[in-house]
Amino acid sequence: MKKKRTGIVTHVMVGHDKHTLESRRVPRVQVTFEGFVGDQHAGLTRRSDVRVPHYPRGTIIRNTRQVSMLSLEEMADIAAALQLPEVLPQWLGGNLAFQGIPDLTMLPPSTRIFFPDDAVLVVDVENMPCTGPGEVLQLKYPDIPKPVQSFPKAAMHKRGLVGWVERPGYINEGDEVTILLPPPVTYSY
Amino acid sequence: MKKKRTGIVTHVMVGHDKHTLESRRVPRVQVTFEGFVGDQHAGLTRRSDVRVPHYPRGTIIRNTRQVSMLSLEEMADIAAALQLPEVLPQWLGGNLAFQGIPDLTMLPPSTRIFFPDDAVLVVDVENMPCTGPGEVLQLKYPDIPKPVQSFPKAAMHKRGLVGWVERPGYINEGDEVTILLPPPVTYSY
Repeated sequence: MKKKRTGIVTHVMVGHDKHTLESRRVPRVQVTFEGFVGDQHAGLTRRSDVRVPHYPRGTIIRNTRQVSMLSLEEMADIAAALQLPEVLPQWLGGNLAFQGIPDLTMLPPSTRIFFPDDAVLVVDVENMPCTGPGEVLQLKYPDIPKPVQSFPKAAMHKRGLVGWVERPGYINEGDEVTILLPPPVTYSY
Repeated sequence: MKKKRTGIVTHVMVGHDKHTLESRRVPRVQVTFEGFVGDQHAGLTRRSDVRVPHYPRGTIIRNTRQVSMLSLEEMADIAAALQLPEVLPQWLGGNLAFQGIPDLTMLPPSTRIFFPDDAVLVVDVENMPCTGPGEVLQLKYPDIPKPVQSFPKAAMHKRGLVGWVERPGYINEGDEVTILLPPPVTYSY
């Protein structure tokens, strides 16, 4: 498979307040094998939760959800579906937002994303929307009805990806990225 | 996706001699976040090599090749293609061999393999055959012509998988495993 040039990093974000999903925009972040330095989801391991129901809750497993990645185009779709003027990547607890990668959320597991300052991220899986972002939206737009209920449907297959660090480095706003898809899948039971 | 019961562990193997690809059979192995305890491919990180040409050679990257997994049925196919009485999993430097998982080598990236004593392995990618196993075969069968040249073709798409540990535990010969496929891939450029 060949690498393809595609997409620009529009937002780099770090979440360090455990009381909110919301993250904060920074111009540049250091990336280690644990994730984004200073981010609350960084770590080599994590405790299993509702997103991995095949593990007993609280099992210590490898952290494949170090980084949350979003698409500006998909976020515009979410805002349109919710009839909101905008939905910002920070509000969804994103760590990165991209512009120019078509259907980002559909990138398959094991896709590699290469950044110019050495960092490489690997896609674990699509991030399935839950109710947390709706709670942030309700704070931002107090007058809209029930975003907690409507967010998951509006964001289905548009809520981005989670992934982990294969190579440390730095990521900057404005970085141009290339992506490498894994081999096509031919397996079926 | 649902887990499916499938396959038996027929061989557990550890390679601890850096001078040979060959591994040694053991009845049981401890599995940590680094890999199989005592195995030469264990480690949280590794130096990049010819298998990841998208990195400058020798770059420190996360080790997604902790464990080498093989299929007894596929190894029988390799032996038949080479007109040999048998090819043993140890000779290919395997860490695990399975019986009963159809087309093991074709399991897609991010497939999870669950073992009864807690361990869970995640598929990184198909192991592309190189010339190393042919060298071992030449030692085992001194009279056969040029296995170093013929092994890669005979073993293409049958040389198993490499992967990494998502959950520590133990793996025993005779373990019954279940597998969990990732969501189907729909992405194309």
